This record gives sequence, C-alpha cells and structure tokens, in this order.
Amino acid sequence: MSKFSVTPWGIVGKIDYVELQEKFGTFPVGSILFRRFARYNKLHPMLRRGIFYSCRDVDTLLDKYDAGNKFLLYTGRGPSGDTHLGHIMPWLFNKWIQDTFKIPMYFQITDDEKFLFKNLTLHDTRKMAYENALDFIAIGFDTKNTKIILNTECVKTLYPIALKVAKKITFSTAKAVFGFENSNNIGQIFYTAMQAAPAFLASEIEEREVPCLIPCGIDQDPHFRAARDVASILGYPKPSMLYCKMLPGLNGMSKMSSSEDNITIYMTDSPNAVSKKIGKAFTGGCVSIKEQRQKGGNPGSCVIFQYNYYMFEYDDSKLEEIARRCKNGDILCGECKAILSEKINIFLDRHMAKREKAKEVIDSMAFGDFKW
Amino acid sequence: MSKFSVTPWGIVGKIDYVELQEKFGTFPVGSILFRRFARYNKLHPMLRRGIFYSCRDVDTLLDKYDAGNKFLLYTGRGPSGDTHLGHIMPWLFNKWIQDTFKIPMYFQITDDEKFLFKNLTLHDTRKMAYENALDFIAIGFDTKNTKIILNTECVKTLYPIALKVAKKITFSTAKAVFGFENSNNIGQIFYTAMQAAPAFLASEIEEREVPCLIPCGIDQDPHFRAARDVASILGYPKPSMLYCKMLPGLNGMSKMSSSEDNITIYMTDSPNAVSKKIGKAFTGGCVSIKEQRQKGGNPGSCVIFQYNYYMFEYDDSKLEEIARRCKNGDILCGECKAILSEKINIFLDRHMAKREKAKEVIDSMAFGDFKW
Repeated sequence: MSKFSVTPWGIVGKIDYVELQEKFGTFPVGSILFRRFARYNKLHPMLRRGIFYSCRDVDTLLDKYDAGNKFLLYTGRGPSGDTHLGHIMPWLFNKWIQDTFKIPMYFQITDDEKFLFKNLTLHDTRKMAYENALDFIAIGFDTKNTKIILNTECVKTLYPIALKVAKKITFSTAKAVFGFENSNNIGQIFYTAMQAAPAFLASEIEEREVPCLIPCGIDQDPHFRAARDVASILGYPKPSMLYCKMLPGLNGMSKMSSSEDNITIYMTDSPNAVSKKIGKAFTGGCVSIKEQRQKGGNPGSCVIFQYNYYMFEYDDSKLEEIARRCKNGDILCGECKAILSEKINIFLDRHMAKREKAKEVIDSMAFGDFKW
Repeated sequence: MSKFSVTPWGIVGKIDYVELQEKFGTFPVGSILFRRFARYNKLHPMLRRGIFYSCRDVDTLLDKYDAGNKFLLYTGRGPSGDTHLGHIMPWLFNKWIQDTFKIPMYFQITDDEKFLFKNLTLHDTRKMAYENALDFIAIGFDTKNTKIILNTECVKTLYPIALKVAKKITFSTAKAVFGFENSNNIGQIFYTAMQAAPAFLASEIEEREVPCLIPCGIDQDPHFRAARDVASILGYPKPSMLYCKMLPGLNGMSKMSSSEDNITIYMTDSPNAVSKKIGKAFTGGCVSIKEQRQKGGNPGSCVIFQYNYYMFEYDDSKLEEIARRCKNGDILCGECKAILSEKINIFLDRHMAKREKAKEVIDSMAFGDFKW
C-alpha cells in the first residue's frame, strides 16, 4: 500500500513521484526527449532538473510538429483562491513552450469545478477567476495567440464536446479513475468532461486533427487519462501530456496550497510577509550555528534550496555553488533565506507591475469575446 | 412487486396509474382542485376525465396566484423523433393553462438528454428539435409570451443553475431516484440538473420567488422530485406539478412511442396512413359482426374510445353516446374507426397548416435569441 494518494482534488501524504508515475502509467521524461526539445530551444531548467518529469506521447507530438503540424498548448487553473508560486511555476514552463514553438494556447479557468468541489459560490469563483487570470497573463503569454476559457462563460462552446466525452465515460470508469463514492455530487461526476473539452476544441473548430500538448501538475492525470481513453472513439487526437511535480510548501510537505496560508507564498504577499514566511521555512540546516559550520547543511531536504531549484536559480553553476557552500557550512540558513527572499520579492514586484498591465488586455484574450 | 416500471427513459409493462401515484408519492387531482380550476375557466376535459390525474402543490400555487403572484408555465420535449399524438396531448392542456392564466411559458427541448440516452448524434437531435418545436408552436401558444429553450443553445443561462442543483444531488440520491447503475454514462447522471434549471430560471432572472407549474407526463416525476428536494436549499420555490397519463399506443399498450411506428400516429402521417393505422388498432369489439350486434363492444378496453376520451371528443354527451352505442352493438368497430380517422385527419390537416406558419415565428420565440 502507498502511503500517499493523489487526485485532482487532493493530495494525502508525501508524494513518491516515481511510484506515482508507475501508478498512473505515465512515462519518464529522459535524455531522448531532452535532445529533441534542445533542437528547438535551449533546454528549460524544469526539464533538465526533472521537474517536468513525466509524460504521455510527447515524442509523437514532436514528430507531427516536425512534419509541419503545429499543436495547441492547453493548461488551466481552478479558481479557489489567490494565485501562489505553486501555480506560477508550471505557467513559466508553459510560456517557454509557447515561445519555443510559436503556437496558440488555451487557458481554461474551471470555475464550475471549484464551485462543485469547494464551499464556494459562483460569485466567489468568478472573482477569483478574474484575479487568477491577471496572474496568468502577467507571465507574458502571447496576448494575440492565447485565449482564456472561463467555463461558465464559454460553456456553449464546451458543452457539446463535453457531452460527447461524457457519453463515452461510464460511472464505473469515473469511479475507478477518480475514486468517486455515492456521496459525490452529480456535478462532480460529470465535471471531467468539461476539463477534457478544450483539448478537443481546436480539432472541433478547425474540423481536422489538431494535436494538443497539456503541461500541468501530475495530479491532473486522472482527467486526461479519461480524456485520452475516449479521444480516438470520438475521432480526436489523444492529447499529449507533460507532467510536473508540485512545488513544495514552506513546511517541506508535498504542495503549496491556497488552503494553507502559512506554507504558501502568494503573488500578493508583501516583501515583509515573504521575508517572514521564508524565515520560517523548513531547511536542511543544523540546530546550532556551530554545528552547521562544522557539519554543513543538507540542501536535499531544504525547502529554500528546492525553491531555487524549481524557480529562482536557473543557472546550474550558481545552484551547484549554493549546494556546495551549504554542505561545507560556508553559508548559513539565515543568509540563504535572505538571498531567496530578495529574489522572490524582486520576482513578485515585477510580477505585480505586469499584472497591473494585464488588466488592459484581459478582455481581448477572452475566448469567444465574453466580458469579464 | 409491481409488474411495471416507469422512468423518464423507459416504461416496462402496463402502467397501473394508481399504484404509480403511490410509488412516486404524488397526489390525486380531485374535486377540490376541479372547483378551483373551474373558477378561472371552463374545466378542461383532461382534468375532468382524470387524464391530468396527479399533482404536487397545485393548491399552494393557485393560492399564490389568487394573491396576485403569477406563475411561470414550463414543459418540455426530448427530441428523439417525429412528434406524435402522445406529445401533442399534454401540450393541448398546457395551452389551456396559458390561455386561462395569461402567463409566460418556457418550453425546454432537451437535445442533450436525447444525445446522452439514445444512439443519436447532436446533429440528429438538433434537426429533430427544430421539427418538434414547429409542432409545439402549431398548438397555438402565445408567441410573445412563450420562449423555447434548446439546451445546447441556452446552456450558458442554464448551466450555472444546473451547477447549483447538481451540487445538492449526490450520486446516491440519483441512483435511488433514477435507478442508475455503474454502466450509466456520466452525462446521464448529471442531466437531471439541466432539466431542473428552467423551473428556477425565472426566479434567477427576476431575483424573486417566481412560482412554476409543470404539466407533463408522470414519467417525468423523478426529475422534478429531485428538483423539488433541492429547491428550498437553493432559495427557489418548489415547482408545482400536474401529471398526466400517457396516451396509449395503437396496440392498447402503455404509451405511443417514437421508437414504434406501428403503434404511433405522427403529425406528419398522411390521411391514408392514419386510416390504415387506426384500422389496425386494438378495439373492444367482438370477433364477429353478428356477435357484436348481439353482445355489444367494450369501450373500456378500446383504443379508439381512448383516443376520443383523451383528445378527440371533448363533448361529454357525445362521448357517452359513443360508449352507449358501442355497448348496445349499435355501432361496429369499422364505423367507429372511420369516424375517428376522419377526426384525426382533420386535426392533422389543420395542425400541418399551423405548423407551416410556425416557421415564421420560431426564431422570435428562441430564448436568448439563439438562431435555429
């Protein structure tokens, strides 16, 4: 028995990502795929470092791309709270994919999902959707080539596709894939069909097979496993998947989470709040300065190091230098935390400025021209 | 154990309508309700004759009406084939309600439902929806006060309400109410929320409690039982229900059905086809003319008499005269069939003319101005 469980709606226990990959039946991203991606652009650190570590059918997608068949990029967000670093991380990678391949993108905001699964009103989820969309746009996606799909606004386009998907998924399958029980509500049971829809939307609109790449957290695999299973029956190409690990929370546990303020850095956190939160983060340091100077710290179990590794130090040699200095006892946790706090605060400061500008373009990016 | 089962998607065995009423927990329409309706208009034969025989909360609806609170009328159709007399019958009653109370009406066409439950494409159901809508309009509803809701077209308005409904219905409840099994698809499981939505739509739009009356076949009660259960939690008034029996098929079995051409009279049937079908109908006659002249027929088990009773002879004294002459052996089945065939053909002829004119107004009756 695994000591953890992962569904799109919750993670229990500490994730063993190798075991999870086996459980879900996804494939490791390895050197062959590195070499292929390196042909189009300098390899992204999140690939090199095994953060986007697992996949489905990315090789066949790139084969099609090489043969002149551009793909669609699709990722999403469930609006249940303020955006935090754990959301931003995979979006940075999505931007790299869009920049590298110059392709159109759909960003789905699943307000229906969060309404159905959380104690939130549609008014709540709508408000959060708007705020989250600003954060997404601030990452710098191609404003002309990126469309934001808000489920309740775009349902007229999504619903017929969702119906086709839903018709091919029995309750039995949904139960096996998502672990539904008799107490789940009937909206939750249907919902996966709405999340599948954007993957097939371009094929539907263009009336040809438009391949689709979905880079997202591996916790979303149950949705896309179900979607891939029905794709061929419906005459759509199976979406290709690139899955990342989840950015750890400040306590070193599996995932930053909107529902736990203490372990999460929000895009709206003040510099002071960031410094305080980082100050309390779980590190690989020793109990005393003296001991750490003598024995050194352990970057492998350090959240501060993880954040550098995931997002804040893309320069490999600098990252190695941090690890080396930590292990040697040359740098103490306090100093390391101060450096990271500053990096994060610079990042957030720039982000908030871009987020302000996002307000000017958000309407133009609405799929089907809905009004926010 | 009952020898029959009734769900919105299928009837097995011959319905015992008294037993069904007990099973569903609906209430008999009796003399008190007759007297109340008779205050507003000459009582409709379908009430008097026990065709609209069962109900929920109609008295409280009329109380509200008397206090000045107009209600909304809502009924619907699942577009799985051509319209037949069995569909038209309750629509005639709906028109009487609209004429009597001068109230707005929603007519929901559930193309999503039929796609999910039948071997039909969305293209099929859309085509049927249009044809069915013409038949509905031909009944003569107030074109300015009646809106046609086609689910896939109006889903943007319905979906947020359906989400609220769905959030309050567990799979457990849906299983108990509809008899779902593991093999049902996840769209079928969600669907009831879409059928509930129009009942709450006016309350949602007008931001006040708008009562709603739904006259329809009693086979639809599972949907509205579920809808009524969640109404108060969501702050909507519980819809009031007026349920009718199903028009029998030509073989005398429970229901005319689009899936059985031989037992069904379609609005598009030619005069010749009608005469032939009626000619083969199951009657209460004897095996020989001689025997029938001596012993008389049995109107109680005669489909021809049923059709007069349900739709084609609203004059009670004329209906009694038919029964009397039949029992006395004064009239033979052939003659009775010829008279009914002519009545039906006159009805269909007029209907088809009004149906042609319906094409001129169908666009103006689309809810939310969708285009057919």
